[in-house]
This record gives sequence, structure tokens and C-alpha cells, in this order.
Amino acid sequence: MMRVLAAVCAALSFVPMASAEGQSETVTSFVLDNGMQVVVVEDHRAPVVQHMVWYRAGSADEPVGSSGIAHFLEHLLFKATDTMESGELSATVAANGGNDNAFTSYDYTAYFQRIAADRLELMMQMEADRMINIRLTERDIATERDVILEERNQRTENNPRALFGEQLNAVQYLNHRYGIPIIGWRHEMETLDMDDALGFYETYYAPNNAILVVSGDVYPDDVRALAEKHYGVIPSNPDLPERFRATEPPQIAARRVTFRDPRVAQEYVSRSYLAPERDSGAQEKAAALTILEEILGGGTTSYLAQKLQFEKKVAIYTGAFYSGVSLDNTTFDFVVVPIPGITLQEAEDALDRALVEFIKDGVDAEQLARIKMQLRAAQIYARDNVEGIANRYGRALTSGLTVKDVQAWPDILQAVTEEDIIEAARAVLRPETSVTGWLMRAEETTQ
Amino acid sequence: MMRVLAAVCAALSFVPMASAEGQSETVTSFVLDNGMQVVVVEDHRAPVVQHMVWYRAGSADEPVGSSGIAHFLEHLLFKATDTMESGELSATVAANGGNDNAFTSYDYTAYFQRIAADRLELMMQMEADRMINIRLTERDIATERDVILEERNQRTENNPRALFGEQLNAVQYLNHRYGIPIIGWRHEMETLDMDDALGFYETYYAPNNAILVVSGDVYPDDVRALAEKHYGVIPSNPDLPERFRATEPPQIAARRVTFRDPRVAQEYVSRSYLAPERDSGAQEKAAALTILEEILGGGTTSYLAQKLQFEKKVAIYTGAFYSGVSLDNTTFDFVVVPIPGITLQEAEDALDRALVEFIKDGVDAEQLARIKMQLRAAQIYARDNVEGIANRYGRALTSGLTVKDVQAWPDILQAVTEEDIIEAARAVLRPETSVTGWLMRAEETTQ
Repeated sequence: MMRVLAAVCAALSFVPMASAEGQSETVTSFVLDNGMQVVVVEDHRAPVVQHMVWYRAGSADEPVGSSGIAHFLEHLLFKATDTMESGELSATVAANGGNDNAFTSYDYTAYFQRIAADRLELMMQMEADRMINIRLTERDIATERDVILEERNQRTENNPRALFGEQLNAVQYLNHRYGIPIIGWRHEMETLDMDDALGFYETYYAPNNAILVVSGDVYPDDVRALAEKHYGVIPSNPDLPERFRATEPPQIAARRVTFRDPRVAQEYVSRSYLAPERDSGAQEKAAALTILEEILGGGTTSYLAQKLQFEKKVAIYTGAFYSGVSLDNTTFDFVVVPIPGITLQEAEDALDRALVEFIKDGVDAEQLARIKMQLRAAQIYARDNVEGIANRYGRALTSGLTVKDVQAWPDILQAVTEEDIIEAARAVLRPETSVTGWLMRAEETTQ
Repeated sequence: MMRVLAAVCAALSFVPMASAEGQSETVTSFVLDNGMQVVVVEDHRAPVVQHMVWYRAGSADEPVGSSGIAHFLEHLLFKATDTMESGELSATVAANGGNDNAFTSYDYTAYFQRIAADRLELMMQMEADRMINIRLTERDIATERDVILEERNQRTENNPRALFGEQLNAVQYLNHRYGIPIIGWRHEMETLDMDDALGFYETYYAPNNAILVVSGDVYPDDVRALAEKHYGVIPSNPDLPERFRATEPPQIAARRVTFRDPRVAQEYVSRSYLAPERDSGAQEKAAALTILEEILGGGTTSYLAQKLQFEKKVAIYTGAFYSGVSLDNTTFDFVVVPIPGITLQEAEDALDRALVEFIKDGVDAEQLARIKMQLRAAQIYARDNVEGIANRYGRALTSGLTVKDVQAWPDILQAVTEEDIIEAARAVLRPETSVTGWLMRAEETTQ
């Protein structure tokens, strides 16, 4: 109680979040004077803290022709600043018994440390430092560019599934930058230079484009005081551009991609559909799709597993994939791995028949009840994972959602009806927006 | 002779072009002090002149999210300037017995008037005026945006072949802006505003980004004097950005697009492959592809017509399409329209078999000789078309070629060997870079 009152008195920008019914996450959110948003998730069971800074800038915010710069810059933030030597931040975290890392996606770049709670100020001091003070050398650029190219070699070039995925994605999006890989196209990564890195840094690395998420054994007032001291003194960027992405034109033609590679160990069919994401204040469609994913592809009791693996015995694996946390339109994906002797065409046909039957049959009420129960349980268990909670808020807030949206989500999921799910399936599973992929061994000559 | 000497004395930037062997085009090229290139093509047979200004800015130079702005601005250049009322330029041209128009493509926007030669100065005065002095009103923006949207309705939305072509193109290019329609995506056209128009205008409409092409009954010295008087006084844009486009990553997966529309009167198969364009000083591959296009798809004596229309009787029409004039990678395209009773799959299979056979069989020497003769004849006849000559130079110069490249082209075409053609076919007709399209009537339920 004291916490909330103190907060309300402190500033109008302080918005305490009452826990939703049945939720025990104690979340406090406020905004510093320079525009930096702060989210505090309390968990006093262990004296540890997760300290994260999320930037509302990911690969989909990159300039044309500079794919990979968001991820490259993420690497470069572990180099020297005005006050730290290259590698000093991570070494300091480790010397204090913590660990640190960073990650880049389409919509965000995030940096974090997990460490004893009494080291929080040191983390803020160092993270705030590299928000404004990086000092890159041409040698940093050259060596770290080799590192990201090698990362691409390992993750993508040496992995036919990853190469296949890139081509599928590029064909799924006709206009939006989600069609370009997060790590970057190799030929563009090779050209990334100091100007590209500093341009992205100076545009997007500013408190008014950042979200501080601190979870663990902390109190909002303390976090606020520290945040004001270390982050509050950094000037906002008055030239921060409004966040803009080109949107898709109507997708009106079904697409197919065939990729052959001699390294393919297991052929499979992939199918993706353009799908809506969770929008702030309007998460219902995404909730229906989230449950649809579970119904169709959530493990061995799912509809597709039953139909394709057990009844028809055409597949050794079926999967459905959907994540609604995305700034712009995302995809709803399927994978079907046929059993030996079943062709990709037969596997694809079986998938299509199963989807048509599912929409005709409707949702099994018992399965829906079971899935809702599992989701509720998973959400409760998730609260034990302080790192996971911080990620959940960081991803949501950099993807256009609010703390309120995050907290409303469990109840929105529970409210999804059988009709909502079938309606969502009908709306999304349309051939015109789909991309069907066949990953094949290069020897095959089927045309 | 006098002309060439005078030119050499006039300025170092004056580069007189000696006519290539067998060529009678009298072409003079020079550059004004402000960076504006001038090309003069003399033809004194009739007292008319074609006056064109080409900007090195087309739809592929547009900012992300503003597709259509190049073409929209082209429309807006017929509105008022500081000294002319809206529509006054065209009315003046017409009152002087001429006609005028403009066009936009991926790599350029061009404005032209065709008129009596003694009106050239008036044309220059008006064209130079709208290079710097347009004065747009919000009403211009609103009304002309409706005009381009209606243009899109007529050309694209009401034309399933055009809609199909847009989706094919978007899938052909994974990274480059040639995947976006010149007229623009409708949802982006609807948002184009004054800022978009003026931004594009102020960036690209400047003498150092323009090429003046004058063909007809003119002499270079006179054109130079007039050009210096009217265009030479316009300051160059020091902030003109270096021309940059994102290039394609390796295209490693064959793609297919199926578009169904109830308005389709005639179903057909389309096939495109990514193909090299004419590069300055290196036009040989494009020359081989230009002749390959003629061999495979140039009318009823072509290879595909023989195989698919006459021998196999599976197609009522076959075509091959390639144009090497492009700043960046272009495409080599085929169309096969099956006869009634032949499926699209059968038509596509017949195309694929024919292409394999062609590469195996090699080029028919007599056909090659005939095509080279036809190309030579067509080039000679083309010299009679003053408008066509001006277009040829304007397109080439805005697409990365030089006057020298244009003049070398006929001989490069003649030098293409049978082996060059087969090598070019092998290099370009690779499934991994291809997009196969089926345009189908919506009633069909074939999956």
C-alpha cells in the first residue's frame, strides 16, 4: 500500500498496476522525465535481480540495404565506452557472480544481467554508460563483423532448414521488413561499417526509446531512485523518428517455395499464413489463434497429431506455431514431416484435408477446457521464473502492448469460445495469404 | 566536322561521339557546369524536335512505405509553378501545335514535348521552370491522388493479369524494390501527401540528377546555348544522395504463385527467372539473352512456338520477354497459354521440356543468322523514329549505361555466338531463381 501511495504522490506518470484477478505479479510501471519507461516486477523470494534494457528498435527498423545492423550493434555494445574497456562490462558482471547477455529480434534489442540484488546500481551505471558512451574503433568493426558473419555461417549457411526458412519468410512478406532475416542477408552484413553502426545507435539508443525492466528482489521506489540517478540524466533524443514500417498490400495469391539441398536429412512440408498479432486493447483474435495453435499442434493429443500421425499414419511429426507478440502482422505456421514412403504432396494434402475437417467438425469442448486449464497452470508456473517475467513484459512493451495488455491476456485467453476459434481459423487459414514450402534433398528430381 | 571541333574547344566536359561503323545516328553529348547531362541526336529531315528531360529517379528510388510517389509527382508536375498556372504548360505546347506527356518507370521519370523545332526554347523555359518552381496546393494533392488511385483501379484492380503480375514480381524480388509496383501499392498511395511529394521533388529534381535529350532538327551548339541559358542557371543539389538500391540475396528456392480470379478469361502459365541487365562496358550477357528471347519467343518461327504450338499442339500462344535496359537485375520471362483441354500443369511441363531440349539441341545457325539480320534491320528502321531514338538514349542513360554503350550495342548483338546463347540460357534458366505463376479462373477447385 505504501508503495502505491508513494508512487502516486511522486509523479503523474507513475501508473501503479493493480493485480488482475488471480494474478500475483506485483508490477509497477512509470516513466522518467526523459521518456524512459520503467517496469518493476517484484519477487522477494530470492535476493536476485534481472536487470534489462529493451530498445524499441530491431531488425525491422533497419535502413534499407543495411540488414543485420541491429544485431551487429548489439555485439558492438560489449566493446569499449568512455569509461569501460572492451569486455569490461561482462567481466564485471561475472566478477560479481552474475551473468549477462543480449538479444535482437524484429521489433527489439535487449540487454540484461542477472545478478545479486545488491549489485543493481552497478548494473544500471554500466548499462546507462553504454546507452550513450560507446567508443568504437575500426578494429572493433572489422573483428566483430567477422564474428557475426561466422554466426551466420553456423546458424544459417550450414543449416538448410534455416536457409529454407529465410526464403519462405521473404516470400511471405511482399512489402514488410519481416521478410528480411534478423541476422541480415550475408551480402549486406559484409558491407556494414562504422557509419551504419553509429547511425543506428544515435537514432535508436536513447532513453525515450528504451524500456527498463527490473524483476526480482527489488522495490519500485528504490528502482526509481536508481533509475533517475543513472538513466534519468541521459537526454532524450528529440529526433527519434516515429516508429514506421511499410505494411502489406492485400495478399491475394497462394505461394509455394521448393528448396533442395544435399544436406537435408529429413524432408518436410511447411505452411504459413499471414496472421494478426496482439494489438493493444484488442487481443481477442490473437487469443483465439493462440488456442488454435494448441488445439491443432500442441503435442501428441493435438488435432493434427491425431489425424496425421495416429489415424492416417502419414506423418512422424506435426506442429503448429503462432506467437502473437509482434508489432505488425505475424504468421501462423504448420510443419508436417512425412513418414518414409509418404511423399511431400501426400503429406501436404493430408494437412489440407485435416484443416478443412477441423473447421467443419468444430472444436472439441473437452480439449478446449483441458487446454485452458493447461494455459492457466503454465501462467502460474511462469511466475516462478523471474527472468521469464521480465522477458514477457519487455517483449510486449516493445511490440506495441502495455502492462495492462499483458495483465489482461490470461483472462482474454480464458474467455475464448469454440466459435471464436473456428472464426479465427476461417479468417486466417486462407490460401491467398499462404506460403507452402517443401524442403527436399537435392537428389530428388520430382518436379 | 565543324560541330565536333567547336565542341572540343568549348569545354572539356563536351564529349563528341564518333559514329560507330555503320551507324548514322549523329549524337553529341556534353555536361553543363551544374552537372546536367545533355544528349543531342540530330535528324534534319523534318523541322520537328523531341525535347525530353529524364530524371535518374523512379519507383525503385522511393522511400519505404511511399510506393507510388515517383509516379504521383510526375502527375503533379503538370500543376502550377511560380510562373505558370496549373495545366498551362500542356496548353502552351498544344497551342504551339505540339504534344507533351510524361512517364515513370522503376529507374526513371521522364517529361517530353514533341513540337516544331523553332519552339525548342519555349519548351526548355517551361521544363526548366517546373524543375525548381512547382507550387503545389493541398487541393492539387487531394485531386491528383484521386486521379492516380483511379488510374490504379483501371490498370490494375480491374485487371486480373496486372494483379497477378504484381504478386509475381513481389515474389521474384526478395530484397530489391523492383518487387514493388511502379504505380504503388494502393494502401500506400492513399497516404501520399504534400511532404512525400516535395521530399521526392527536392531530393531528385535537380540538374545534376537530370539528363536533357533533344532529338530532331537541331544543332548541338544551339542546344548547348539554350540549355545553358535555361537549365544551366539552376543550382545543382549538393545533397543528392548516391544512387543506392538493396540488392538480392542468393535466390536459392524455386517459387510458385497461384492467383484465382473470377474475371480471368484466359488461364495461363507464367515463368520468370532473375536475369542480368546490360552493364556499362559489359553488355555481352545481356546481348546473348536479347537474342535468346528472340530465338525462344520471337513470333511464330520461334523455338517455343514450333515446339508447343505446332509440334505438340498444347499452346495457343507462347512468348519470351527480356529487356536488358535496367539499372539492376531484371528478369527473363515466359508465358504459355494452353489450348482448351490442356491443363496449366501440362503447359508448364511442356515449357520445361522444351527449354531442356533447347539447351541440349543448341542454337539453329540459320535461325540465329536470320534473327541477327532482323535486329540489324530493326535498328536501321529505328533511326527513322526520332522519338524512339530519344527514348532509347534517355532510358539507357538513366539505367546506368553511357552513350558509348548505346552505340556499341548493335555490334555486340551481332557478335553473339551460338555458344554464348546456350551459356546464357544455362546461367539464367535455373529453377532456384524462378517464379512460376498460374493465373486461374476462380471457379476451378484444383489444388
